[in-house]
Amino acid sequence: MLGSTHGTFTTGLRARVEACGESPRTAVHGHAAAPGDRDVSGRPLHAEVPDLDRFFRPRSVAVVGASDAEGRPNTGITRQLLAWAERVGAELIPVHPTRTAVFGIDCVPSVKELAGPVDLAVLLVADPLPVIEQLGEAEVRFAVAFASGFAETGADGAAAQRRLAEAVRRTGIRLLGPNTNLNAFERFRDDLEGPAVALITQSGHQGRPVFTLQELGVRLSHWAPTGNEADLETADFLSYFASLPEVGAIAAYVEGLKDGRSFLLAADRAAREGVPVVAVKVGRTETGARTAASHTGKLTGADRVVDAAMRQFGVIRVDGLDQLQDTAALLARARRPLADGVVVYSISGGTGAHFADLATAAGLTLPTLPRAKQDELHQWIPEYLNVANPVDNGGHPVGDWRGRKIIDAILADPSVGVLVCPITGPFPPMSDKLAQDLVEAAEATDKLVCVVWGSPVGTEDAYRTTLLGSSRVATFRTFANCIGAVKAYLDHHRFTAGYRSPFDEAPRTPSPSFRKAQALMRPGQRLSEHAAKQLLRAYGIRVPREQLVTSAAAAVRAAGLVGYPVVMKASGAQLAHKTELGLVKVGLTSASQVRDAYRDLTDIARYEQIDLDGVLVCQMVGKGVEMVVGVTRDDLFGPTVTVGLGGVLVEVLNDTAVRVPPFGEREARSMLDELRGRALLDGVRGAPPADVDALVEVVLRVQRMALELDGDLAELDINPLMVLPRGQGAVALDALAVCR
Amino acid sequence: MLGSTHGTFTTGLRARVEACGESPRTAVHGHAAAPGDRDVSGRPLHAEVPDLDRFFRPRSVAVVGASDAEGRPNTGITRQLLAWAERVGAELIPVHPTRTAVFGIDCVPSVKELAGPVDLAVLLVADPLPVIEQLGEAEVRFAVAFASGFAETGADGAAAQRRLAEAVRRTGIRLLGPNTNLNAFERFRDDLEGPAVALITQSGHQGRPVFTLQELGVRLSHWAPTGNEADLETADFLSYFASLPEVGAIAAYVEGLKDGRSFLLAADRAAREGVPVVAVKVGRTETGARTAASHTGKLTGADRVVDAAMRQFGVIRVDGLDQLQDTAALLARARRPLADGVVVYSISGGTGAHFADLATAAGLTLPTLPRAKQDELHQWIPEYLNVANPVDNGGHPVGDWRGRKIIDAILADPSVGVLVCPITGPFPPMSDKLAQDLVEAAEATDKLVCVVWGSPVGTEDAYRTTLLGSSRVATFRTFANCIGAVKAYLDHHRFTAGYRSPFDEAPRTPSPSFRKAQALMRPGQRLSEHAAKQLLRAYGIRVPREQLVTSAAAAVRAAGLVGYPVVMKASGAQLAHKTELGLVKVGLTSASQVRDAYRDLTDIARYEQIDLDGVLVCQMVGKGVEMVVGVTRDDLFGPTVTVGLGGVLVEVLNDTAVRVPPFGEREARSMLDELRGRALLDGVRGAPPADVDALVEVVLRVQRMALELDGDLAELDINPLMVLPRGQGAVALDALAVCR
Repeated sequence: MLGSTHGTFTTGLRARVEACGESPRTAVHGHAAAPGDRDVSGRPLHAEVPDLDRFFRPRSVAVVGASDAEGRPNTGITRQLLAWAERVGAELIPVHPTRTAVFGIDCVPSVKELAGPVDLAVLLVADPLPVIEQLGEAEVRFAVAFASGFAETGADGAAAQRRLAEAVRRTGIRLLGPNTNLNAFERFRDDLEGPAVALITQSGHQGRPVFTLQELGVRLSHWAPTGNEADLETADFLSYFASLPEVGAIAAYVEGLKDGRSFLLAADRAAREGVPVVAVKVGRTETGARTAASHTGKLTGADRVVDAAMRQFGVIRVDGLDQLQDTAALLARARRPLADGVVVYSISGGTGAHFADLATAAGLTLPTLPRAKQDELHQWIPEYLNVANPVDNGGHPVGDWRGRKIIDAILADPSVGVLVCPITGPFPPMSDKLAQDLVEAAEATDKLVCVVWGSPVGTEDAYRTTLLGSSRVATFRTFANCIGAVKAYLDHHRFTAGYRSPFDEAPRTPSPSFRKAQALMRPGQRLSEHAAKQLLRAYGIRVPREQLVTSAAAAVRAAGLVGYPVVMKASGAQLAHKTELGLVKVGLTSASQVRDAYRDLTDIARYEQIDLDGVLVCQMVGKGVEMVVGVTRDDLFGPTVTVGLGGVLVEVLNDTAVRVPPFGEREARSMLDELRGRALLDGVRGAPPADVDALVEVVLRVQRMALELDGDLAELDINPLMVLPRGQGAVALDALAVCR
Repeated sequence: MLGSTHGTFTTGLRARVEACGESPRTAVHGHAAAPGDRDVSGRPLHAEVPDLDRFFRPRSVAVVGASDAEGRPNTGITRQLLAWAERVGAELIPVHPTRTAVFGIDCVPSVKELAGPVDLAVLLVADPLPVIEQLGEAEVRFAVAFASGFAETGADGAAAQRRLAEAVRRTGIRLLGPNTNLNAFERFRDDLEGPAVALITQSGHQGRPVFTLQELGVRLSHWAPTGNEADLETADFLSYFASLPEVGAIAAYVEGLKDGRSFLLAADRAAREGVPVVAVKVGRTETGARTAASHTGKLTGADRVVDAAMRQFGVIRVDGLDQLQDTAALLARARRPLADGVVVYSISGGTGAHFADLATAAGLTLPTLPRAKQDELHQWIPEYLNVANPVDNGGHPVGDWRGRKIIDAILADPSVGVLVCPITGPFPPMSDKLAQDLVEAAEATDKLVCVVWGSPVGTEDAYRTTLLGSSRVATFRTFANCIGAVKAYLDHHRFTAGYRSPFDEAPRTPSPSFRKAQALMRPGQRLSEHAAKQLLRAYGIRVPREQLVTSAAAAVRAAGLVGYPVVMKASGAQLAHKTELGLVKVGLTSASQVRDAYRDLTDIARYEQIDLDGVLVCQMVGKGVEMVVGVTRDDLFGPTVTVGLGGVLVEVLNDTAVRVPPFGEREARSMLDELRGRALLDGVRGAPPADVDALVEVVLRVQRMALELDGDLAELDINPLMVLPRGQGAVALDALAVCR
């Protein structure tokens, strides 16, 4: 592909950048060692990382449609581009068919006339397609198209966008847009230090708050407004930013995705690099998803699947732009935590109690400080105040030399990774000194120091100058955002420390089961229970011994072979709700019961006008925990695997967990921990613990099926999977399979 | 009681104050029409509303321990009180045993020497007890004690606080504190208009953010820092503030409560008056509750019970001080909603989609604007933009004359009660005009106009001057807080519109069941299943026909009387987990089965060394939905009633709902709606709908028991209550009762 250099794909885990300039990340970009490497479903296994250096820092910029005529919209844009080009030291080349100069710079009549290579062409034309075609003949690496009227407007627009994408592919140019804006060419503050936040948005207005963080002292390095993503997409910027040493965190505002897999591969790359990704993803509700889809014409995916996929690859999902700002700013700048413990330090017992309450409820760990540490603190804090954590100093000590000593003493404790000081009521004689002490203490430690400035006013000096002037103190305005960001920070480092990319272990070639399974598929049809169970058996999932019979006599013979007691069920491809219809008979212990059952089942089927392919005579399986395991297809991510508690729990409470392949055993186990009724697997009311290992094995085998049969299988539902007591395995008692 | 005038208690629902100066509330304070009126459990049925006018606006203030000596802490306090007394026009009288004057004002040597009545005595002494005793002889109505070292320090302090409370009761003085502060005597802005927020806090530092709202233009009328509440408690200020015409909303920061009932009565009074109460209640976790309890030495109660109690009486619980501010400010100032529909209006499709997504997820209703309204909006907004709701204006129309027209047109639609305009990225040429238009439109409508100012900077003119300068626009900084406050606003008005005080209908005298039930109680003991069921029967709750027998022959006779099939259970006061131990036999259909069962049960009991008082032979009840209904005691509120889904749902998921008596049928029904497994009652998997009316009736009868047997019953647990199909009732199959 024109304009990208291929380097070596980074495998394994690498230490994440700890502070500006000390990055283990290389500046080499490129995609996979094996670029064509794909999993058994045909999906790529490595992110292609485009080299976007010359997009963001071009040496030359052609502006097609440049103007300096009064009142033309393009004039304002040209002026802004000119200012930006000057700042970044790029040569600006106006392209205009009739003008000789724009803002005093000589024009080129068309892109064909461009002399020599040009890094970036900005297209200020209503129809970018013909220009893209021409650019292909010039030596141009990147283009930006502002024009709207594409996929966001409906079917015609989507067709126009496909033509544009096709032209881009032909020419090898990388395109940003269409339906994008000038955000990439904003004025970035260059006086700020430390690791930066890089921003990706699908709406300029929604990116503004994060961009504005610069006014509060947070460094921003890039802004990619991806628009309709005809070519370059969110995932491209994600992997590119994750490869840059100066980027400490990536903030993304996502309405929809162009492709699920490319997003996951990019998130995987960020996880390998240890670069945190914080994202708002619109689409919690149907309304939101629909409205968002109409904005840039992308897929939104089922929200719970998006949610799971993000968690699997360590993307920190938040709902508010304020949380996006606060979490990204903290994660970009904080060093690796030295401990998980959070200490709350306050001038008020009430404030400490309130913060501790909410922090504990959110899952943060507030260690009790050791007796010796408490004694040390009581040198400076009156004896009657609680200093176990929260540490309540009663106010006065912050006003003098003791203030700094207390903070340093808390930070010195090995159980402490984070010190949070909520200042809900600013009282300058105390809070000014407290803020100054916190800033100085934060400079002298590798541990995280957070302040919540609770005054709704926010113009106070201690806040504006002292706290926001420090890049070492993370300052918040609300308890909730501080707690959320600290939680995300600790979780992120725990996640990356234990991260193993599932793409490294994803199956590349079909298993021996595949050929057997494929022979069972009936395109476009639903398989009978018996066939669906054979499919499971092909993948090594246990099913009861069973025989399909078509006469009462055969049923009795089958029962003898299967072994009493038996279960009998009507069998037919169109059968659902067998139990409700009385088409299942359990605990049959004799030939006469089997004969009666055969007659009953066929009578009911006749009465209900259901076509049967026979009656199943099945081995009766012992008691266990009923689960469901299944495969469904998501618009965005393809096949997904679900596990849930069976019976009333799945029916009434929909107590299920979902994952997007590929995922490993650890994720499969974590699915079970998400279930509200998880305790059932551990044994309640005297029941023995269930064979969780066998259950996990079934989930992983079902994942394998989902990947290998990706082209053939529309839906799979094992319901129930009877998980027997520990050591006894799990048996699929019923299954539904629908072929594509 | 000295210093309080008794007026008429307001019964029935009254319209809530809609705007400043138009209050239907009277200025008459006083407690119940029938002051001694109590429910059958002996708890009061009416809030005593103290007249605190002269506390907050005293004509004369004695300062005991006043000082002007350099460096004494009391000097600063005296100076602040002096400034405050001047502002409110009160005479300040320093009391000091040796000084002749303080700050040039003549001293009185002791409180005994005070000439004539004094409204308020401020006690700046370490031990307020002797002064309180002396004040009893002077004509003093209110006192404030700042001293700490009482209940917050442990048992000794609690004893000292009890002595103080006793002295207060003897003297008839009303006391604020001890362990309180100067917050009641802060400088309140008197240049702000409109309904005010009144503030109650149990921590000065935690109240500061709400107090500081004045700097953002929100009027504050009072601040009650209740401290340890030896006498005056949160509830007193709640009922008092609810009676004041100038108060539009009450904001409370609560760590613990002195008494559950008085809080509920105060909340009831606020609900009757239609005055919204917004409260932070610390204690979501054990940690938080413990830390909070040590702060002012009060009871925190079980959090889910507190949560339920607040919801029952319409108290809006929030977790963050930022939410407390934002919600109270909105509720104080917004007029009654004219419709429930929320329209989102934005200059960006992305912003509209994002806000709509979160608002819908939170349960707000976003109506689709009618076709005609959309056509109207398209006069000013380009055709390709979505104006159905969210309304996306694309930006440009806000910059000119169209901006105001669009806002007015949206507000004119009858489905619209609230217009929210999220401005995430300020762009002065557009957003300044937009803010101005919104402020002007808000002045011209009775509907609620909200703005979210998304810039994290917050020093922009459009925000500081235009938006915060308006008392008609509710301005927020985050989507979440705006959505939470709008939801609280609509919910509050829906709640008060349908509110009927349960205190009006609470039982005052024991029912005929009471005497029968009392005879069954065994103080300090656990009743046998049979006795517990007799207790239920006394209250008209159905139990199976059953007999207690002590021989196999008697069992057979009993089965004949009860009617086959029967259930047999071991019976004994100490029996638990009968099913797990195999001490229940169901579906017995013959004399021989009954005989065998009798032998089995007694054998098992002997083997397990369990004392039996016999074996129960019970009627076998048909299939239904298994529920649990019970009574447990809460530290703060006394008896509470719980209902939940039985079996695995209550055991594994603890799917239960709780209420604090008294509550009516509507609350009992709403308990069921809280259950996650509620759908089971409506019939799933082909089961018929359950007899919900019968279940509700059981819940109400259990409430009656809980109240009437308050002194006798420690715990009651009906498990399971079999709720039969609709029309067939509900039967208590097993019950556990523990006497106090």
